[in-house]
Amino acid sequence: MAVNEYLVTGMTCGHCEMSVREEVGEIDGVTDVQASHETGKLVVTAAGDIDDARVLAAVQEAGYAAERA
Amino acid sequence: MAVNEYLVTGMTCGHCEMSVREEVGEIDGVTDVQASHETGKLVVTAAGDIDDARVLAAVQEAGYAAERA
Repeated sequence: MAVNEYLVTGMTCGHCEMSVREEVGEIDGVTDVQASHETGKLVVTAAGDIDDARVLAAVQEAGYAAERA
Repeated sequence: MAVNEYLVTGMTCGHCEMSVREEVGEIDGVTDVQASHETGKLVVTAAGDIDDARVLAAVQEAGYAAERA
């Protein structure tokens, strides 16, 4: 199991959090996604290793920018 | 035809605008809804008279507060 943390910029409300959760949650192996527009924190939990590139791409697909924290 | 303007507080992004548009757009007779999170302005167009109470209730249903402008 792995838990990776990222910093997302641009989320302003709960809808934004939901968009990020939906996109990141579609990544294979991801079992939990926590996103906060207040802190910008994104915490991704997966059964195995987490591919940062896929997470960052998913966040971008949702309309936001992210970096590994 | 009628065009009524309202001021909505709490919209922070395009998702918020979309939530408001969806709820207000479900009101009978409404033909167009414009919402801006930047100005808070909500402009509702309908075939006939617009019932303010229904618009304000729809905005509240979407999770925001509004008043007639």
